[in-house]
Amino acid sequence: MDVYCFLFKEFETLDVFGPAEAFGKIATCHLHFISAQGGIVKSAQNVEVMTEKVDIKKFMEVVLLPGGQGTRPISNDSRTIELMKAIAQRTKYFLTVCTGAVVLAKTGLLDGRKATSNKRAFAWALRERTSVNWQKRARWVIDGKFYTSSGISAGIDMALGFIADNFGRKTAEDIAKQMEYIWNADKDNDPFAIC
Amino acid sequence: MDVYCFLFKEFETLDVFGPAEAFGKIATCHLHFISAQGGIVKSAQNVEVMTEKVDIKKFMEVVLLPGGQGTRPISNDSRTIELMKAIAQRTKYFLTVCTGAVVLAKTGLLDGRKATSNKRAFAWALRERTSVNWQKRARWVIDGKFYTSSGISAGIDMALGFIADNFGRKTAEDIAKQMEYIWNADKDNDPFAIC
Repeated sequence: MDVYCFLFKEFETLDVFGPAEAFGKIATCHLHFISAQGGIVKSAQNVEVMTEKVDIKKFMEVVLLPGGQGTRPISNDSRTIELMKAIAQRTKYFLTVCTGAVVLAKTGLLDGRKATSNKRAFAWALRERTSVNWQKRARWVIDGKFYTSSGISAGIDMALGFIADNFGRKTAEDIAKQMEYIWNADKDNDPFAIC
Repeated sequence: MDVYCFLFKEFETLDVFGPAEAFGKIATCHLHFISAQGGIVKSAQNVEVMTEKVDIKKFMEVVLLPGGQGTRPISNDSRTIELMKAIAQRTKYFLTVCTGAVVLAKTGLLDGRKATSNKRAFAWALRERTSVNWQKRARWVIDGKFYTSSGISAGIDMALGFIADNFGRKTAEDIAKQMEYIWNADKDNDPFAIC
């Protein structure tokens, strides 16, 4: 399995590297870090990560889109949204963490579908795309090929859930143990829901 | 507060970026990523991170050393151990995650002190430096200026504990909430102890 993490300026660090840690524990899983332009991309926490330039013609099995402050400008940038739509239409699975869901929502591909996002930015998500069936209480949500998670750490729980769905529950549990991580394995158990 | 994360080939991704996420939420906290040679350093999960070359003459208030497969070769490399000793002698605080503690132990600076490490690599830690008072059951351990945590995710709990010690408990709790992370705030509560 090839997992492509799409980075942009001021992405949220843990949104990417929590799931990357989990995927990285699977021998047959290969991680790639991509961006619109390629080269170094700096996270909101000042981590400078080398990326490859996205190749839209390449089949990307799994794409992960993080959240972070950087989703605010790109959610209003029509070129980025078009790029994201082109990517998301071709992937087998498309995963978002935190406000990455808002960027995906702006493509229209979540219209009529269930999805979630960071509970602290939920009002923004609701405003940005009213036609999504936003879930106020969910650690993560699955609808078709789309996995959307709640804020930051929820991405780890979702990644382990995705691994369970694709590689079996035991594999996910073993990885959580290796990470010395208490996995919240119930996607409906949302300790940070605000309503 | 300036926090310097010391990276090396095949460091464990989340060991660094879990704590970095927490520290990054403090406006007065500045994160730096350093390495022995500077330039791009690749994690065990294929993340390529840009680093500055370490400047041993510079005062580094807080240094964080991750674990990962890469600790095996560097724990036997006398030049790295000498460098780490020189760094650790001058910092105000020195934090390790996972098997980063073994590298620190090899400097001799943990001799007679309490410390912990990843529970799955504990036998290795014990063998490598018998003169450390290794704690078999601890999410993280504080002894003087040294904070040592258990495996991978434990680094997040320790970082929040360190933040509580230096910026107040409420700040740490607020950051955990922002991260939508269930903080294990009790350093003696170790769900992954094997004895």
